[in-house]
Amino acid sequence: MEIKFIPKVEFERINCSHLPKTQKLELIADMCRFNTFVEVKKAGSGHLGSSFSAMDIVVDLYYDWMNIKDVGIDNPNRDIYFSSKGHDVPGLYSILYALGIIPEEKFLNLRRLGGLDGHPDVRNPGCEVNSGSLGMGISKGKGIAIAKKLNNYGGRVFVLIGDGELQEGQNFEALQSLIPQKACNLTVIMDHNKIQSDRPIADIIDLGNIARKIESFGWYVAQCDGHDFEQLTDVLQQLKVINDKPKFLICNTIKGKGISFMEHPKALSDNNGFYKWHSGAPDDDSFILGYNELLDKLKNKFSEYNLKTLKLKHAATIDLHRIRLKNIAENVVSAFSEELVDLARTSKDIVVLDADLSGDCGLLQFEKEFPERFIECGIAEQDMVSIAGGLALHGLLPIVNSFGVFLASRANEQIYTNSTERTKIIYVCHYSGLIPAGPGKSHQSMRDISLFGGLHNCTIIEPCNSLETKMVLSWCVNNAKENCMIRLAISPSPRRILQKDYKLEFGKGNELNEGSDALIISYGPVMLNEALTASDILKDENFSLKVVNLPWLNKIDLDWFKTITEGFNKIFVLENHYAYGALGDAILNLLNDNDLNIKVITFSVKGLPECGTPKEVLQFHGLDGESLARRIKEFK
Amino acid sequence: MEIKFIPKVEFERINCSHLPKTQKLELIADMCRFNTFVEVKKAGSGHLGSSFSAMDIVVDLYYDWMNIKDVGIDNPNRDIYFSSKGHDVPGLYSILYALGIIPEEKFLNLRRLGGLDGHPDVRNPGCEVNSGSLGMGISKGKGIAIAKKLNNYGGRVFVLIGDGELQEGQNFEALQSLIPQKACNLTVIMDHNKIQSDRPIADIIDLGNIARKIESFGWYVAQCDGHDFEQLTDVLQQLKVINDKPKFLICNTIKGKGISFMEHPKALSDNNGFYKWHSGAPDDDSFILGYNELLDKLKNKFSEYNLKTLKLKHAATIDLHRIRLKNIAENVVSAFSEELVDLARTSKDIVVLDADLSGDCGLLQFEKEFPERFIECGIAEQDMVSIAGGLALHGLLPIVNSFGVFLASRANEQIYTNSTERTKIIYVCHYSGLIPAGPGKSHQSMRDISLFGGLHNCTIIEPCNSLETKMVLSWCVNNAKENCMIRLAISPSPRRILQKDYKLEFGKGNELNEGSDALIISYGPVMLNEALTASDILKDENFSLKVVNLPWLNKIDLDWFKTITEGFNKIFVLENHYAYGALGDAILNLLNDNDLNIKVITFSVKGLPECGTPKEVLQFHGLDGESLARRIKEFK
Repeated sequence: MEIKFIPKVEFERINCSHLPKTQKLELIADMCRFNTFVEVKKAGSGHLGSSFSAMDIVVDLYYDWMNIKDVGIDNPNRDIYFSSKGHDVPGLYSILYALGIIPEEKFLNLRRLGGLDGHPDVRNPGCEVNSGSLGMGISKGKGIAIAKKLNNYGGRVFVLIGDGELQEGQNFEALQSLIPQKACNLTVIMDHNKIQSDRPIADIIDLGNIARKIESFGWYVAQCDGHDFEQLTDVLQQLKVINDKPKFLICNTIKGKGISFMEHPKALSDNNGFYKWHSGAPDDDSFILGYNELLDKLKNKFSEYNLKTLKLKHAATIDLHRIRLKNIAENVVSAFSEELVDLARTSKDIVVLDADLSGDCGLLQFEKEFPERFIECGIAEQDMVSIAGGLALHGLLPIVNSFGVFLASRANEQIYTNSTERTKIIYVCHYSGLIPAGPGKSHQSMRDISLFGGLHNCTIIEPCNSLETKMVLSWCVNNAKENCMIRLAISPSPRRILQKDYKLEFGKGNELNEGSDALIISYGPVMLNEALTASDILKDENFSLKVVNLPWLNKIDLDWFKTITEGFNKIFVLENHYAYGALGDAILNLLNDNDLNIKVITFSVKGLPECGTPKEVLQFHGLDGESLARRIKEFK
Repeated sequence: MEIKFIPKVEFERINCSHLPKTQKLELIADMCRFNTFVEVKKAGSGHLGSSFSAMDIVVDLYYDWMNIKDVGIDNPNRDIYFSSKGHDVPGLYSILYALGIIPEEKFLNLRRLGGLDGHPDVRNPGCEVNSGSLGMGISKGKGIAIAKKLNNYGGRVFVLIGDGELQEGQNFEALQSLIPQKACNLTVIMDHNKIQSDRPIADIIDLGNIARKIESFGWYVAQCDGHDFEQLTDVLQQLKVINDKPKFLICNTIKGKGISFMEHPKALSDNNGFYKWHSGAPDDDSFILGYNELLDKLKNKFSEYNLKTLKLKHAATIDLHRIRLKNIAENVVSAFSEELVDLARTSKDIVVLDADLSGDCGLLQFEKEFPERFIECGIAEQDMVSIAGGLALHGLLPIVNSFGVFLASRANEQIYTNSTERTKIIYVCHYSGLIPAGPGKSHQSMRDISLFGGLHNCTIIEPCNSLETKMVLSWCVNNAKENCMIRLAISPSPRRILQKDYKLEFGKGNELNEGSDALIISYGPVMLNEALTASDILKDENFSLKVVNLPWLNKIDLDWFKTITEGFNKIFVLENHYAYGALGDAILNLLNDNDLNIKVITFSVKGLPECGTPKEVLQFHGLDGESLARRIKEFK
C-alpha cells in the first residue's frame, strides 16, 4: 500500500492563508496529526496517543505563542519548549517538519539510523533536551530558566509533562524548590489526558485534585481545554502577566485526539478497559481506517474553507499484513510470565511489584490470578523498590519489575539500601540491552549490570530462551540465597536457541555450537543469535567457531570455565551491554585470580547506543553476525 | 574527665514508680537525653539535634503507645517503629537500652566495631529497617504495612520522618500511592523541628503549608506539640480510629530540645544563623555545660518528685582538649573550597549546586562570594542533577556536590540522561570511600566509581592531597572535554602526602616511594597513607615497597604504566572502594588489551563496609598499613 504525507509547502500555504487564527491552527494541528500517523506507521513504532493529545498545545506554542518563528531555533533569546515525557516526540517532529526545522528526509526516517530518534535528542534540530525517562523535565526546565537569567538572555521556558508522569517523585522535588530559585520565567503545561500506558491513571495511582496539589507547592495554577485554541490563547495571556510565581497550566485533553477510535473513552470501552494506542504503530487495518478518517476530515475542511485541494506526497510503500516476528518467534517475556504464575501457585510468599509496565513485563496474568499479591506502584520506581524492601524484611519474596534502564538507575540507592538489610529480593530488568533500538538511548540499558554489579550480595543472570528463562526464575525463587537480578530481552528472538538436555547449574554455561578455531562466550537471546550467525558464516569459510552460552554474568564456575576454554589461548566475549562491568570483566578477574593465561577480546557497545532497526543498530556497533565474523577473523 | 550514664535499673525504677504518666514519660525522656548526650560524646560523633527533638515522641511510642512492651520485639504482631532519617538513632538506642533491648556493652559503644551502627541496621536488636539515606521511610513503612496484611499479622506501623527530609521526591511517590495500596495501618509522624543540617528549612527549600500539602495527597493530617505528652496521647488516640485513610501527624518540635544552648532559636542566634548541633559530638566545654545542665535538671526533678537520688554509672574517661586531627592535618575539602573560589573568579561560567551539605562539602565560601551562581537545591539530588543538565545545555559549567553515596546512586539516571546530551558537568562525590566509618554503610561510598564508570564520557579522578586536589579541580574546569567525577575524602588525612615538583598529567600518576621488592598502586589520601605505612613497616624488614599514586581511576596512560611497572611481574592495587569496577579492573583491562603479563592483586573492601573508628574499620577490612604489609609479604 502506498502511503502519503503532507509536504511542508502545504503547511506554509495554510499558515499564509487568510483563515482566522483558530481555524488555521486547528487545520495545521490536524495536518500534523496526519503526518504523525504516517510517520509512526512507517517507523513501525512510536507513541501516537499522547502525540495526538498534546498536538493542539504544541501547535499553539510554535505557531502562535513562542518567539521561535521570529528569532529562530539558535537564538539564545528564544523561547524554549520541550516535552518531559518525550515519547510524544513524533508529534513534535511533525510540527518541526512543517516549520522547516527538520528536513524531509529526516522526518520520514523516524526511529532509523541517521533519522530521528525515538525519544528527543539534542542532536536533532529543534530538540532542546534529551528526554524519555520520566519526571526530569521540570528540573531541567528550571536549569534552563536559571541559565537564561544568569546569562541575561530573554525568552521563556515551557515544559510539557504528562499526567501519569506526575507519579515520579522528582517532579515534587522540582515543584517544591522552584520558588527560592526564582525561575518564574518557567511555565509547566500538563497534557492531562487521564490515561497512562494502557490504563486510566485513576486505576493505577490516582492523582487526586491535581490543581490543589500543585497549588499547595506555591505555584499559580490555571486550567483549560487543551484542544480549544481560543482557551489556550486566553490562558497563556493570563499566565504571561504572572511574574511572581512559577506557573502550571493543566490542559484537559483526550488521549488519541483526532482519530475517533483512538480517543478515550471509546478506545477504552472498545478494548476491555485497556488503551491500546499508547505505543506501537497501528496494525494495518486500523492504520487504513485512521488514515482515511484523518484524510477525509482534512479534505472536508479544505473544501469548507474554500482552500485549494490538499496536495500529498509519497511517503512509503507499506508491506501490508506481513508476518510479525513477535507472533512467531521465541519470547522470553511470555516464558517469564508463565513461570511466574506457576511458581506463585506454590510459593505463597511471592509478591509482584510493577511500575506501570505490566503489559510489557508480562505481569498481566499474575495480576489477574493473584490480585492481592500484585502491587501496582505507578511510575515510581523508588517507591516500588523500598516497598519491596519492607515486604522482604517481613518474610515475603518481592519480584520487582521495570525496564532495566529505569530500575537499575532510578532506584539504585533504594536497591543498595535493601541489600544492606541482607534480605532477598528478585529484580527483573526487562528491556535490557541494545535491542529494540527504536526508542533510543533513554530506553536502551547498557549499564544495568554495572549498576547492580557493585552490590555485595546480588547474582546477575540473563537467560537466552524460554526454557532457560523458566529455569532461571525458578532458581532465583527456590535456590538463590541472596538478591538476584534477571535481565530479560523484551523483543522476541529471531532464532530459537536450542539447548538439548540442558540443566541450569550455578556458574556454568553450555556449548551451543562445536568449534575449535575460536571460542565466543555470550548470553541472552539477542547476542547469542548474532554469535550463532557469525558461526554459520565462518563455517562456510571453514572456520569453526564454538559458541558458548553463559547466563551467569557475575558468578562463574572455575572448573567449568577451564574445561570450556581448554585449548584456547584467546576467547571472544560478546556483550549486550557496555564492556564496563560486564561479563568480560568478570572473566578477566577470574583469569587473573587463577593465573590463567588467556587473552580476552570483548565485543560490546561503545559510545551511546544508536537508535534504529535491530539490524541497523547491531551493524552500527559492529555486533551483528556479519561484523562479528569479520572481527573474529581479524584475530585469526 | 570521668563521664557517667544512667543505668537501665534506674529507668525501670522510674517506670514502675507511681508518678503520673506525663511526669513519668517526661522524666524518662530527659534521662534518655542524658544518656544520648553521653553516648555521642563517647563516640566522638553522632546526631544530637534531632535525637533530642524526636525524643519525646519516641519515648511516648515505646513506653506508652506501642505494644512492644507487651509482646516483645520479635513478635510478628508487634507494632513497628522506625525513623526514616535514621541519624536520630542515638536517641532511639538510649530508649532501647533503657527498655533492656540493647545490652549495656553495645550501648556504650556507639559507632565502634561490634558496637552500635552510626545509622540504624537491622542487625541491632530493635532496629526494624536500615536507614540513613533520606526519603525512603514512608515507602518502606508501606511495604511493612502491606506485609502485615498479607501475612495476616496485627500491629501498626509508625514511621518518623524529618521535615527537611520531605525535600526528597520519593516521599511524594510514597504519599501519592498509599491509598490504592490500602496500607491504612500506617502512621507517618513528622519531627517538625524546622532546621535541616545547619540552617532553617525556610532558608533552604521552604516546605510551605505542610498540612495542606499532605492533605492534597489524600491523607488525614493532625498536628500537635511533639514535646507535650498529653497532646501526643490525645492525637494518637484520635488517629487510632481513622481507618479509611493513611495518617500523617505533624509534631512541632524544637531541634536540640532539652539543653538550653542547643535549642533553636537561641542556638541559631548564638552562631550567626547556623545551627551547629546537627551532627558531631559537642566540644569539651559545651559537653561539660550540657552534661551539668541535664544532670541538674534531672536531680531537681527527682527531688521535686520525692524520688530516691538518681544513681549513675561510669561510662568513660574522656581525654579533654585533645588535639583534633582536623585542626592539624591535610584536608582536601578545604583545598577544594579555596580552588573553587579562585577558579570562579576567572571562569564566570561556573555554577555550584548543593544538596544541603554546603558546610561538609566546602561550599560556604563560594556561596558567600558568588551567591547568584550558587544554587541550593535542598535534599533533592535528582532535581539538582537535572537542573545542572539544563544549565550545561545553555553554556554554563555546573559543579554538582553531594556525598558520593547519595549523588552517584540517587541521581544516577539523571546523571546518565545529562551524559547523553554530550554537555560537560563536574560531579563532586564528597565523603567517598570507607573513612569516616562512624556513620556506617548508608554513608560509606563503595560503589561510586562503578556507578559513574559505565558512562561513556566521564573521567573519574581522586586526588591524594591539597595540592593535587587543586590541580584536579583546575584540570576539570579548564582542560577536561567531557564530564568529570571527582572523589574527595571528607576526613583530614593523618599524613601530608608529599609530591615534589608534581605536575598533574592526564592518565599518569607518580611514585611516592622508591622500592624494588613490590609495587602498590593506590589513590586518595586515605589509602595512600596506609600504603605508605605498609611501606614503612616493610622497610624495617628490608623489603622495599614502591608506592605509586594514580589519581586517574578510569583513564590510564599506557606508556607511563609500562614505565612504572617495569621489572614487576605482579602489582598490588589498593582500592578505597569495592574491587568491582574500580582501578584494579581498569588495570586488568589495560593489561589484557596490551598483552602485558602482570598479575594484579587487589586489596579492597569486601562485603558491607563496617562501622567504627578509622583504625578499627581499616583493620577489619585488612586495609590498614599493618595488614597490608602482612598481606604483601604473603605474596613474596
